[in-house]
This record gives sequence, C-alpha cells and structure tokens, in this order.
Amino acid sequence: MPGDEAQLGQSVRTVIARVREREPVVHCITAAVSMPLVADGLLASGARPLMTETLAEAPHLTTEADALVINLGTLSTDAAAAIPATVEAATAAAMPWVLDPTAIGRAPVRTPLARRLLAFSPTIICANASEARALAGETHHGRGADSTARPGEARGAAEILAARTGGTVTVTGAVDLILDADRSGEVALGDALMSRVTGTGCLHTAIAAACAAVEEDPYTAAYAAATWLGAAGHRAGKVTRRPGSFRVALLDAIDEVKDES
Amino acid sequence: MPGDEAQLGQSVRTVIARVREREPVVHCITAAVSMPLVADGLLASGARPLMTETLAEAPHLTTEADALVINLGTLSTDAAAAIPATVEAATAAAMPWVLDPTAIGRAPVRTPLARRLLAFSPTIICANASEARALAGETHHGRGADSTARPGEARGAAEILAARTGGTVTVTGAVDLILDADRSGEVALGDALMSRVTGTGCLHTAIAAACAAVEEDPYTAAYAAATWLGAAGHRAGKVTRRPGSFRVALLDAIDEVKDES
Amino acid sequence: MPGDEAQLGQSVRTVIARVREREPVVHCITAAVSMPLVADGLLASGARPLMTETLAEAPHLTTEADALVINLGTLSTDAAAAIPATVEAATAAAMPWVLDPTAIGRAPVRTPLARRLLAFSPTIICANASEARALAGETHHGRGADSTARPGEARGAAEILAARTGGTVTVTGAVDLILDADRSGEVALGDALMSRVTGTGCLHTAIAAACAAVEEDPYTAAYAAATWLGAAGHRAGKVTRRPGSFRVALLDAIDEVKDES
Repeated sequence: MPGDEAQLGQSVRTVIARVREREPVVHCITAAVSMPLVADGLLASGARPLMTETLAEAPHLTTEADALVINLGTLSTDAAAAIPATVEAATAAAMPWVLDPTAIGRAPVRTPLARRLLAFSPTIICANASEARALAGETHHGRGADSTARPGEARGAAEILAARTGGTVTVTGAVDLILDADRSGEVALGDALMSRVTGTGCLHTAIAAACAAVEEDPYTAAYAAATWLGAAGHRAGKVTRRPGSFRVALLDAIDEVKDES
Repeated sequence: MPGDEAQLGQSVRTVIARVREREPVVHCITAAVSMPLVADGLLASGARPLMTETLAEAPHLTTEADALVINLGTLSTDAAAAIPATVEAATAAAMPWVLDPTAIGRAPVRTPLARRLLAFSPTIICANASEARALAGETHHGRGADSTARPGEARGAAEILAARTGGTVTVTGAVDLILDADRSGEVALGDALMSRVTGTGCLHTAIAAACAAVEEDPYTAAYAAATWLGAAGHRAGKVTRRPGSFRVALLDAIDEVKDES
Repeated sequence: MPGDEAQLGQSVRTVIARVREREPVVHCITAAVSMPLVADGLLASGARPLMTETLAEAPHLTTEADALVINLGTLSTDAAAAIPATVEAATAAAMPWVLDPTAIGRAPVRTPLARRLLAFSPTIICANASEARALAGETHHGRGADSTARPGEARGAAEILAARTGGTVTVTGAVDLILDADRSGEVALGDALMSRVTGTGCLHTAIAAACAAVEEDPYTAAYAAATWLGAAGHRAGKVTRRPGSFRVALLDAIDEVKDES
C-alpha cells in the first residue's frame, strides 16, 4: 500500500511537528529502571515529562498533563496504589492515556491490574507480543520483560484488545504492528541494538502518549510514534554498533528526525 | 559591577578547587528520575553522593555526610516520611542543607511540606521562578516541573524567602538570580540544551550543596554552583547541539572547568 | 602463578562466551540510583535484567530468572520487605545469588539484614573493603558508599565470610581480591575513572551474577566477572579521560571485550 504509506508519511511528519511546537506534558508512571531514558527521550522529542507516582499526588497532578502513561514495569507499592485513581482522573478529564503492560504474565499484581485497567479504555496499548497475548488472556509467553513471541503471533490478541477497548494497539518488535478496529499497518524500522538498551520499549510507549496528546486519531498517533522512534533507531544504528553509544545516539536522533519532507 | 565579578571569579575558583580536594559527601533525597544524573554530576564535580531516602535510615546516615539535599521531585512515600526527620538531624548537626521545591504549586503533599521545611532555615533554596513564587505563597505559575515565569519575575518572592530563612536563594533560569538579605547577583551562562536534559535543575541544587559543604558563606557557595554548572553547560553546548550527547558532554565539562586562573 | 593465570584466562573467555550465548536473566533488587547502569551493563554483557522489588511480586518473579542480585544500596521500604522472601525463593530453586552489602556499617536496617542473609549462603559476596569488614563484624571503616580501606586490609574479613557461607568473596578495589575456602586470586585491571561513575560497583555485582548463571564454579564466575569488567574499564580509559564519556565507553567496552583468544 504505497499510497497509504505516503499519506501516513505526511501525517507522521505533521504529528512530529506538532509535538515539537506544542511541547505536551506527559505524565508517566513508569518503570524505575527506565525513568531517565523515558524522560530524556520525551525531552528529545519536544515533549515534557512529569513523573509522580504516589496516590497522594499522582491523581491531582495528572490533570496538569496532556497525556498519561501507565507502564507496569518494576511496579512499586506506591505506583500500584496510585494507578487506578490516576487513570480515573485522566479519563474523567478526557485525556488520552497509554497502557504498557510490561512483564505481565505470571506477575501476580500487575497482571490483574492490567486487565482491570482495560475497563478504562486506554487510547493506545503498547506492548510486546508476549505481553499483548497475556493481556488478552492467552497463555504467558514471556520471560521477565522479554518477549518470546513475534508481533505477528500476537495479531489475534491485538485484535481482541482493540475490539474490547475501542482503542489502538501497538505490538512492538523487529516489525511493529499497529491496529485498531478498522485499520492495521506495520513499521519495519528501528535497529537490533534497541533491544540492548534498557527502556526503549518504555520510551516507545511514552512517545505514543506525546503523539496522542497532539493528534486526535489514536491510530495515527501510534503509527507516528512507531515511525518516529523507528527512524531514530535506524539513524542511531548508522552512527554506532555498540550499546552505550547507541543510547546516546538514539536520543540525539529523536531530535534529528525531520518533520518536513 | 565588574570589580565584584572579578572578586567572585576568584572565589568561584576557590570553591571548585576545594570541592575537588575535600570530596564532600552529599546526601541527596532527590527525584527518582534524575538520581543518576545527580549522582554522576556530583562525582564529576569531585563530590561523593549518598542516596538513601527511608525514615529508617536517612536520618542516621545523613550525619555521615557533609551536606544534605532535599529535592521534592517525584516525592515517594518513603521520602515524604523521611524528609522532616532527616532535615532535623542535619540541622542538629549544623550541616548545610539545600532545599529544591520541585514542582510544588498545586501538588497537595509537597507544597505544605516545602513550606514547613522553611522553618528549618535552608542554607540555600534552589528553585525555578514558578517554584520560588509558589514557595513564597504567590499564585502557582508552573506546569509540572516547568516554570512559566522568568527568574526576574520571582525576585520579590526570592527576597521574601531570603528574609524568612536568613539564607540564600537561587532562582534558576536562562539567567540565574542569586540573592540573600544583603547581596544579589546574576549568572548568565549555561545553554538552552540544559532544559532538554532531565535533572539539570536537580544537579544545580546538588552542586550547590557540594559547594556549601566547603564554603561557609552560602551566597558565595550558591554563586559558585551557578557559575560552575553554567560554565560547564556553556562548554558542552560548544561540543554538541543534540540532547543525548549534550548530557554526556555536560558531565565531562563539570570535570573540565578550570579552578585556576 | 602464570600457569594458573593462563588457565583462568581461558575459563574467563569461556564464561564470557556463555553469557553472550545463553543470555541469562538476572533478577536485580538493587540501588535505585544505579538501576539504569546495572540494567544497561547487563544488556551490554549479553544478559537480560529483570528488576522488581516488591514483596508482592519479587519472590514470584525471581524463579523466572537464572540468577539473583541483592544489592542493599538505597534500600527502599519495598526492597527491605521483599528481600528475605526473594532470597528464600531463589535458594529454594537452587539459583545462584550474589549479595552486595552496599554502605552497610552504621546503617541501622541494612547491616542486620545483610548479616541475616549470610545464613542463605550467597554464592558470591561482592563488596568493597569497608563493606566486607563490616559484614564480617569488624568495625565500620566506610563513609557512605565509599570504602576507606583497601582490599588487602579486608583479606581476613573475606576469609571469614567465605568460611561462613561456603561461597566466594570478591573484594573490589583498584586491585580486586577474589577468594573462596581453597583459592584466591587478584585482578589488577580497571581504571581510576570507574570510581567516578555511579554504580560501577553495583554493575560488578550484577555481572558476577550473570557469570554465576552460566558457570557452576562460583570462584571462576567471580574471577571472570572481575576480569571482564576490569578489561572493559581498561579499554574505556583509553578512549576518554572524562567521567561522562567514560560511562558510555564502559558500556561499549563490555560488549567489545573478546571471548576468543
């Protein structure tokens, strides 16, 4: 579908330009281990991170943001207590929000929590194939935060999740799969080194939220995020083939990706 | 005031040299998202970080340090519980301590906590303009952790805070404003890219604590910290114009800034 | 013992090759401040990090891993509650586990906790000289997370710990000391800049766990880890003499160290 791709190419550029212009505030309750990459990646995109995860403050502060990220990685006691009320506050304010069910499967707290959050209709779900399948109720196929399944194997699970939430689902992998009830597409960008830097999946989710803050159509926002980060990863992979310098080059490249044709 | 500036130039160099020589231990209760930058920035300066934030341990361990940083960003339940007792232990030991009221304003826990901490007379308050105004009781002008006001607009608030605490106040921004009851100065260094790296404000606060650990006059310590980090940012901005590599260059530059004329 | 060294050289290469081939999952309950470096360093080594520290989830998830790291730095309330049950689950599953008693000494919670964990016979203990001495019951010689003693001064303490646990002890420093009940060796690699990057000690511990996941003999695993990270530090120190870029070069170098002669 070259025509579609060209069209999406233009809409991707429009979304990127808007994030840079409007500088949306993205509230993230996210994995402790990837907080710095997520925050620096959001700043590199033009968005601004807000990271607070206590029940006492997160539900109040989330309404100052333009989008919310709920990432269940390294789920702290603070975060587990705060997430339901924060999602409720965000949805009451009609804010877009993105769910990343990191490492659910056999995890006894985050798995039921993730399923419960589906009732709040996440604008976008961003997950690897194992997580998408576990969230849809299929048998667990992951190990820790890694996926042992390929995005294509999670297409059925993604369709179930999209139907249940009315939102968009991104299944991340070497080829990202993006779909909603009516449309589906693939993004084959990125670089193998992305899986050797902690938190690139979490960053994908956060950039999807930044895009959803400035683009009303969740599918277009999710597609733009996958394309933007994928293009940045592709650029970074041409700068270096080692993981430490790749992390630096990836952040630089998020800033470098052009928003004009 | 060129004469004063030259004089401060010498005192800045003296403070930097002392931090490198004495390697003060700086205990930080700080935002989770910027912990790595703060710790690496302190190590780059020559100081040594100590990061523990539980009520069970922080008040005991703080007395092993030479200065204390209380930064309210991402305030965890652990940190909220530990901060009052830790500040009390530090002030009982006559240690210098620096308060960074990150993202107060509408935040329901950290705003009253920050105001309560004013009674413990922070040696230095380090805040952006919105935070300084909120701490002084003026209407909230920030959004998340960002300032929507300029340092100059917070001069009145800073004067109120300096009068109330007897300490020094740094209002960070494109031009940093430093003042106490008797003196005021400005530091126009740094680089616009500093606002595109998570935690440079938190690092400013931590370096102010490192300087206060080796310099009895808080105004001189605060001025030295603003100048040191500003000079490092200026250097880093000549190395790169992208945010990922700027973060690396900034840490390198903190180590590179000369302490001799 | 040049013959021994040559032999160990071969076994070090074998361990490195196995980590890269088998990609062991290493569950880390570790200091918040160094989580990103530990996770990125594990990924650079070929291993995969899993970081969850709540009592509700850590004991369940640890059995998905191939090795466990318990690092007491910045010990959160979540981690303090979860550690005993997690260690119990790991040892019940006969998994190797590594204890890093960061900054024990006068710390009122982590010191008794570390001593209590000795009963679970850590496969490897990885500590600086002050921490090793404190864990063995000698007077505290550290300040914050820094050691004021040299590895050689902790030989007696290390021997006591090895005898008590039946495991291997690594005392980190400019020269790393590795010993068990029968053997001892030294690794004089690394670079002085390693002490100017936050968390290189924590990373040493995590890499020891990755090595123990693929090598049954704990002494060989500990020796391989010290050699691998030391060789990487030595390489990085030839790339740069500044701390920000050294951190990047260190991660690159972990990936670069050759596993073939």
